[in-house]
Amino acid sequence: MLKRFLPAAEWLPNYKRDDLSGDLQAGFIVAIMLIPQGMAYAMLAGLPPVVGLYASTIPLIIYALLGTSRQLSVGPVAMVSLLVLAGVSTIAEPGTDEYISLVLLLMLMIGIIQLVMGLCKLGFIVNFISHAVISGFTSAAAIIIGVSQFDHLFGFEFAGSDNVFLRLVETVQRIGDIHLISFFIGAVSILLIILLKKQSPKIPAPLIVVVVMILFVNSLNLHHTGVDIVGNVPAGLPSFSVPELSFELIGTLLPLAVTIALIGFMESIAMAKMIAAKEKYKITPNKELIALGTANIGGSFFSAYPVTGGFSRSAVNYQSGAKTPLASLISAVIIILTLLFFTEWFYFLPNAVLAAIILVAVYNLIDFKEMKHLFSISRIDGAVWLTTFSGTLILGIEEGILLGVAASLLILIVKSSFPYLAELGFSKDSANYKDIRVDPQAEKYPGTVIIRIDASLYFANAPYLEEKFAGMRAELSNVKRVILDFRGVNYIDATALQSLEEIIADYEAADVAVAIANMKETVRKKLNHASWEQKRRQAYDFASIEQALTALETNQ
Amino acid sequence: MLKRFLPAAEWLPNYKRDDLSGDLQAGFIVAIMLIPQGMAYAMLAGLPPVVGLYASTIPLIIYALLGTSRQLSVGPVAMVSLLVLAGVSTIAEPGTDEYISLVLLLMLMIGIIQLVMGLCKLGFIVNFISHAVISGFTSAAAIIIGVSQFDHLFGFEFAGSDNVFLRLVETVQRIGDIHLISFFIGAVSILLIILLKKQSPKIPAPLIVVVVMILFVNSLNLHHTGVDIVGNVPAGLPSFSVPELSFELIGTLLPLAVTIALIGFMESIAMAKMIAAKEKYKITPNKELIALGTANIGGSFFSAYPVTGGFSRSAVNYQSGAKTPLASLISAVIIILTLLFFTEWFYFLPNAVLAAIILVAVYNLIDFKEMKHLFSISRIDGAVWLTTFSGTLILGIEEGILLGVAASLLILIVKSSFPYLAELGFSKDSANYKDIRVDPQAEKYPGTVIIRIDASLYFANAPYLEEKFAGMRAELSNVKRVILDFRGVNYIDATALQSLEEIIADYEAADVAVAIANMKETVRKKLNHASWEQKRRQAYDFASIEQALTALETNQ
Repeated sequence: MLKRFLPAAEWLPNYKRDDLSGDLQAGFIVAIMLIPQGMAYAMLAGLPPVVGLYASTIPLIIYALLGTSRQLSVGPVAMVSLLVLAGVSTIAEPGTDEYISLVLLLMLMIGIIQLVMGLCKLGFIVNFISHAVISGFTSAAAIIIGVSQFDHLFGFEFAGSDNVFLRLVETVQRIGDIHLISFFIGAVSILLIILLKKQSPKIPAPLIVVVVMILFVNSLNLHHTGVDIVGNVPAGLPSFSVPELSFELIGTLLPLAVTIALIGFMESIAMAKMIAAKEKYKITPNKELIALGTANIGGSFFSAYPVTGGFSRSAVNYQSGAKTPLASLISAVIIILTLLFFTEWFYFLPNAVLAAIILVAVYNLIDFKEMKHLFSISRIDGAVWLTTFSGTLILGIEEGILLGVAASLLILIVKSSFPYLAELGFSKDSANYKDIRVDPQAEKYPGTVIIRIDASLYFANAPYLEEKFAGMRAELSNVKRVILDFRGVNYIDATALQSLEEIIADYEAADVAVAIANMKETVRKKLNHASWEQKRRQAYDFASIEQALTALETNQ
Repeated sequence: MLKRFLPAAEWLPNYKRDDLSGDLQAGFIVAIMLIPQGMAYAMLAGLPPVVGLYASTIPLIIYALLGTSRQLSVGPVAMVSLLVLAGVSTIAEPGTDEYISLVLLLMLMIGIIQLVMGLCKLGFIVNFISHAVISGFTSAAAIIIGVSQFDHLFGFEFAGSDNVFLRLVETVQRIGDIHLISFFIGAVSILLIILLKKQSPKIPAPLIVVVVMILFVNSLNLHHTGVDIVGNVPAGLPSFSVPELSFELIGTLLPLAVTIALIGFMESIAMAKMIAAKEKYKITPNKELIALGTANIGGSFFSAYPVTGGFSRSAVNYQSGAKTPLASLISAVIIILTLLFFTEWFYFLPNAVLAAIILVAVYNLIDFKEMKHLFSISRIDGAVWLTTFSGTLILGIEEGILLGVAASLLILIVKSSFPYLAELGFSKDSANYKDIRVDPQAEKYPGTVIIRIDASLYFANAPYLEEKFAGMRAELSNVKRVILDFRGVNYIDATALQSLEEIIADYEAADVAVAIANMKETVRKKLNHASWEQKRRQAYDFASIEQALTALETNQ
């Protein structure tokens, strides 16, 4: 019973000593990655860097106990940080106490939404965000995040709009304002991280760069020349506090909370599934929602900010040998030790280094290759990618993903409202009935038309169907028999049922016999509910086209 | 060429003398119905009664020239009037000059939206409003309209909220405020209309009641006792004026304009199609949009208010013998004559009579039988009816229909994301493959599983499919061959394609051969775009289950 609700009750008592070395190593490496990343992402979210460390303690511990993924590394991530900044900065000034308390309320709301979704088994909702939407959105968000770091990288402060295009323009215009030493530090950091990563992905490149640059700034006293540094990072663990509740603020933050709850879960579940598939164990999406939700709720009482499972950090955790969630517990302990004893070491850390870490991390998320790939398979999927991508860049990140989801679902519905009707003939080559537009050799039967309907029938395509069949009846004057091949009709609703009755009545009034072949059981049930068995005198329901043909021909 | 754009160029030159008597009679009867109805609906819309007459002139003439329906009676209707009141009364006080000028701007916008939709051939959009949504919405709107007339019927003025429930409560609370003579007039009017209608639907019951009650009030000077009367109705034709344009107001009115444009078109096209089907001629939905749009644009320059094709009036027009749009032209001429010479006759018309006309008209729109019918065919359709109905009553009319449309589309998408997978066996009775859950006699083949996938495959159901197939692989350890019956797969998108590749790779890694039978050409195309032909070494694509069975068995 306990095991059903607490996955840790499964792995913790059965912990194998063999797994310990991998977990220890991975836990240590992830912590070393998490310290600079957490601070960088907190800065990206408009929060003091130490909040990123707070977010790497309680939530990690909660997820380790409740999560079904063994290698997922939960904590601050770039995308969620950007969403927090974009949403909350419209209500309060980033960095202020008001801003921080709004972020805590937001985190609590995200947690509750995820928890409730998990308990109600609504995890499938993220499936409505298609791969094309995710990829287009991620690429655009990566560009927005990257550009948002240009001020730290170049050592000036953006004064104008936070629109990504205007920021690019501003960067070019203010080329004279660039603080050269800051830019030097940022550029060298980027180069160093890339080169070190090329050597081996296990090298903690960001931490090495952080250490080198702290020593560099400290030894030359560069902060006196105008290099922005992190400054005082308060020592000690986050204290317990209850997020301030207000109905008005909850109303204002709700759309943002829903967006982050879904996008955060989506990023997390994608990574968790990928690793689980390789390691052959099972992820339960609804339990993942419960785990992430509880992690966010817990964090909101300890000065954290919204967390989720991160892509790159989980990959490092996995590659470094993590076998169980113990690795994450070890990471959390190391972060706690850092908060207790080592925060002053980060005093001289330049903001440009944090910007460099973010830039390298998000660069890999820009994926134009995926767009090309999608276009090659289907122009519609490619168009959805492009719509989401440009919508996100131009309209904003929340609007962009909404536009993408709406567009991809709308395309589906519009497509299904113009179903393909295939006229079939008998193909001797394949000994089967084939679309005569595809196989012109397929033979038609005199006086008979066989139509395969390639869609489920429902209210949105019923009028189109009526129109098509009315047009066909006018054209085919010498046809005496129509067979509807229902193999592709996976369901039918009340409106379409009525249309079908009218279509058949119309044909029969013109002395054309109509039969249905290959009807599925679910469709037959609906017909019976509408009393077709009683209403129709002649047999109309045949197991195959051949049987329908024989029956119609002998009847006449 | 002219005939393509101007349907009147088709019927007018070929007008048959035989049609004239029917058109004359119908035109006269509809006009006699339109005079009290137009005034009543204008009052419902929060406008002076004469506006209802103005709306029965220019728009009727324009529709008669451009419309493809020969019997549709365009003009003021209850549903659109209610929508106008509900929307515009939140911006301006009903009856004021500001209110009237807002309604004219709204009418112009509705016209332009319908015209543009027609020109862009977007008429199919109304198909997304399912029958269940229309019926649930209409029933709720009828109740709202009915209750909104209680003040005129009972002779007091609503003081509280315009929520339908609160109005019912208020009516009960203010039972002492009821003006008995007004209520007497209203109640007798309702009874008279119902009784006269029962005699024959061709009797112009509303007009008779109007005449009787005008004489009654006038002769006894009842307006001095507190019976509200229509009062001065200005004589003369509506004058030409250009609606006042303002970007801000256009922005505010846009959602309302879109709603009315769609709902108005929907009501109109439903009626036009019903009559056209009986009379065996063709309605072109996009031309209907152009005709209604132009009628609304034209009306907005002549002090009218939004119009569409009305249900009950069109039925009367048809039953009274209308053969061509000439009937509507005749109605318009009679209304124009009324405006010129007879407006003062309506001075003593009691508001309670107009309320009675509205109440009888909308009572027939409440359709609980349809709800029962829908529930009997499909619980989901019934639930959509109930959702739209209660949403409209509780949340409001625009919100209600939006909720209904969203719910019906969402249900479709959610349903399609959990596709039914049928395991098939060979049924000797029907000489065909059947779902073994439906036909337990159907025989399975040893070592082989045949799965029919009853859905098109796309991003929202791909994860479910992966999960199902992964679960199945774990269960079926002694299975060596899996045949996927793709007859129900009408299309596949890039995400599902990738899932399918992964599912097959997974099975093949476990030494299970996978083949696809009955693949449709559109699906095969996508597979080829993804280079399946090159990627996969073994044959996987078979025209039928038998062929797949033979091939897999000989391969092994």
